[in-house]
Amino acid sequence: MGALEDGRFDPEIPAIAIGGKGGELGTGTIEDHVRVLLKGLGEDPEREGLRKTPMRVAKAFRDGYRQKVKDIVQDALFPEAGLDNGTGQAGGAGGLVVVRDINLFSFCESCLLPFSIQCHVGYVPSGKRVVGLSKLSRVADIYAKRLQEPKRLADEVCWALQNSINPAGVSVALQCWHIRFPEVFKCNPNPSHPSRSTMQGWVRTTVCSSTGIFNDKNSSLWDEFHGLLKLRGINLSDAGCSSIHSWCPSMSLDLTECHGNISRSNFPIGKVSSQSAMVAAVSSILQSLGEDLSRKELFGTPYRYVHWLMNFRRSNLDFKQTKFTINSAHSCEKVNGYIHSKDEIHSELNFPFCAQCEHHLLPFHGVVHIGFFHDGPIDRSALQSIVHFYACKLQVQERLTRQIAEAVYSFLAKGVMVVVEANHICMISRGIEKVGSSTATMAMMGQFTTDSTARALVLEAISMSTATGG
Amino acid sequence: MGALEDGRFDPEIPAIAIGGKGGELGTGTIEDHVRVLLKGLGEDPEREGLRKTPMRVAKAFRDGYRQKVKDIVQDALFPEAGLDNGTGQAGGAGGLVVVRDINLFSFCESCLLPFSIQCHVGYVPSGKRVVGLSKLSRVADIYAKRLQEPKRLADEVCWALQNSINPAGVSVALQCWHIRFPEVFKCNPNPSHPSRSTMQGWVRTTVCSSTGIFNDKNSSLWDEFHGLLKLRGINLSDAGCSSIHSWCPSMSLDLTECHGNISRSNFPIGKVSSQSAMVAAVSSILQSLGEDLSRKELFGTPYRYVHWLMNFRRSNLDFKQTKFTINSAHSCEKVNGYIHSKDEIHSELNFPFCAQCEHHLLPFHGVVHIGFFHDGPIDRSALQSIVHFYACKLQVQERLTRQIAEAVYSFLAKGVMVVVEANHICMISRGIEKVGSSTATMAMMGQFTTDSTARALVLEAISMSTATGG
Repeated sequence: MGALEDGRFDPEIPAIAIGGKGGELGTGTIEDHVRVLLKGLGEDPEREGLRKTPMRVAKAFRDGYRQKVKDIVQDALFPEAGLDNGTGQAGGAGGLVVVRDINLFSFCESCLLPFSIQCHVGYVPSGKRVVGLSKLSRVADIYAKRLQEPKRLADEVCWALQNSINPAGVSVALQCWHIRFPEVFKCNPNPSHPSRSTMQGWVRTTVCSSTGIFNDKNSSLWDEFHGLLKLRGINLSDAGCSSIHSWCPSMSLDLTECHGNISRSNFPIGKVSSQSAMVAAVSSILQSLGEDLSRKELFGTPYRYVHWLMNFRRSNLDFKQTKFTINSAHSCEKVNGYIHSKDEIHSELNFPFCAQCEHHLLPFHGVVHIGFFHDGPIDRSALQSIVHFYACKLQVQERLTRQIAEAVYSFLAKGVMVVVEANHICMISRGIEKVGSSTATMAMMGQFTTDSTARALVLEAISMSTATGG
Repeated sequence: MGALEDGRFDPEIPAIAIGGKGGELGTGTIEDHVRVLLKGLGEDPEREGLRKTPMRVAKAFRDGYRQKVKDIVQDALFPEAGLDNGTGQAGGAGGLVVVRDINLFSFCESCLLPFSIQCHVGYVPSGKRVVGLSKLSRVADIYAKRLQEPKRLADEVCWALQNSINPAGVSVALQCWHIRFPEVFKCNPNPSHPSRSTMQGWVRTTVCSSTGIFNDKNSSLWDEFHGLLKLRGINLSDAGCSSIHSWCPSMSLDLTECHGNISRSNFPIGKVSSQSAMVAAVSSILQSLGEDLSRKELFGTPYRYVHWLMNFRRSNLDFKQTKFTINSAHSCEKVNGYIHSKDEIHSELNFPFCAQCEHHLLPFHGVVHIGFFHDGPIDRSALQSIVHFYACKLQVQERLTRQIAEAVYSFLAKGVMVVVEANHICMISRGIEKVGSSTATMAMMGQFTTDSTARALVLEAISMSTATGG
């Protein structure tokens, strides 16, 4: 746990002192604090694409803390006959009810990045009443939308349902996936294609929680809950019931190396750097949400989130200025080559990337495919550098696609075609919650603009690489 | 198209006269009309489980007609640089943008039942601006939540995006699935298990629509849209671009046979039967929503919806009274038998069913598994009859599970265990929209109450039948 374990942070420090000077923390709105983050990334918060970003981010954070479980459940308890005691268990008096495969998203309390959840909830009705099935999902959703780690989320959902429904018992199992970083930025020799498994390479964990009759050693209800999940191919055998706080990949970051200026000894009292202002802003956001900053799990969170964000700091460099490194490229990797008219069409496919959506401050990630006219193969790592350069900032996919095309076209001037395929976490975790959707964008320059056969050949090459495992 | 084609209905009749006496239609709220439907099904609209059903149904219908496309899109148009004319197509000046695999639900205008949609939207930006990606999905959702048939929905989404974004062109492809009925009630010899493919046996169609540059014969954009979909395994080769209004399975119903009293000659002026009151109520609901009842596609809709609903009319019979038909059972189908202690445990699995959720007036469908102690196999069709009897009404899954257990226990008194697995269209299409979720419920009576090994054996048998395609 890096900095958190070696006593550099003192748990006795009052929460108010963590983010910066005493009086600063907690003043201003979440929107104001998000603007501090945008400025820290070298951006102008007033430019068109960013103007409403603070509002969107603040809304997403607040929504999870506004809803109350009682409001949701109290109107959805329905009287339902059960069986006489001794006859059996069914209906409103016993008889397991399980809702499987509820898609959720939550925010990792260690790094503030979203993580993906398949949630399975079971309960045993008692008192001759049952709860509307959708409420099991709604209650899980409330707790998911807060800062969480998997085991804590499972426990909170479990207890909230137990206390609001008063059944004989509740069981919750969560399968969770966390984006892996900073590895996500490295060139992956075996990138997963978004169409097959977007979760490949993510950190995975399974956690369980239970109350009441599910904890009774003489009851087999837990086994039956598990049995009903197995009918959908869900196996809990790897489920841990203890806390696995260190599942977040950011816990392995050595924060003192990355941010020498934020260790306790030289914490920003007086010297307020841009990054420490960002750390203070994140601390203030957490406090505005009512989170307890003295909770040890949250100690490093502002630093880790800022560390993540700083990967996307705006650079004033233009890639065209660094063109010389590309011209010196001379190695070659395997290239799918086509001969078409007088020129050779090449394609270099499946460059992984992770960008940050400028509208929601959330990652979008996927692969870039590049087709080009050239008289020979070119260095794949040069293209990967271009992808990395344009992805690692606050972006929109349309612009990323255009910028990569322009950069490649600057030294492959016969013709370039770029296809970007991405999963947008904002499309999945916020608002519309369209799990499974993905976005593809195209840009064409030079010969590709007029040559539809060339475009079709590149699309065909991408399709083949997808089918054979890219 | 049955009654609609033989001139029994006159398109010149003013809309107001279709549902009943002139003055009746359009008076009262949608909630009032839903209460008429509940009464027509033999239910008491004031009983606890139904009290809020009119409110829920009315909200679901109204929601789709309240939102305006302009409100959604106008705040989400972002300036985005493009390429100089002639250089290429990318960013805010050309360059295809496609969002694939958007899950939607819509309401069939022919029968008012929901149908499931995978929606794919593409557009080519122009005027140096792009639209927020999630808005493509939101606009599609607005039109989906209205009464639709697939081609009309594709056209409306296409034109709404064209008019609100003003891009170079828009393309929409929809893959649609419609529940098949009344076959859904028949005992299916090869029932699909909800964990594998819940859409097996549904009516399927694919439709496309496009505007602007996608319709240009000299452009290959449509091929490229299709090419980007193929990267996700989506094939449009079977897509029709003409209207396929007759895709709804209810169009093959002969309404005059089912409801002799609703042909024009004896339409309810004076003689108001329960069913014609229901037809008038549905007509009033459609009119309240602003639908044009003189549109020929809607002519038979109230009749068809009432016909569907009447499958779920409450029966005052108790299945125990019809027990004699079960005792006379003597044939046998393949049974998975286990010897356990002194009794034989049998399981009869995968009885298909379709019930109507009493909270939302929407189908929930799936399979029932029954385990029992008995000294030999029993007639599978008797068990199917029990499942059918209790499923075909306004139900909740917990009660259905208990009632099947009690009915089977009344003649297999050593012990019965019932597992019901179902997909609830209300969980998928309304409110929380948890696509992919499924609900499992259990009931135990007699020996199964105390014998956890017996319960485990039945769950194991279900699991094996799922794995082997049973």
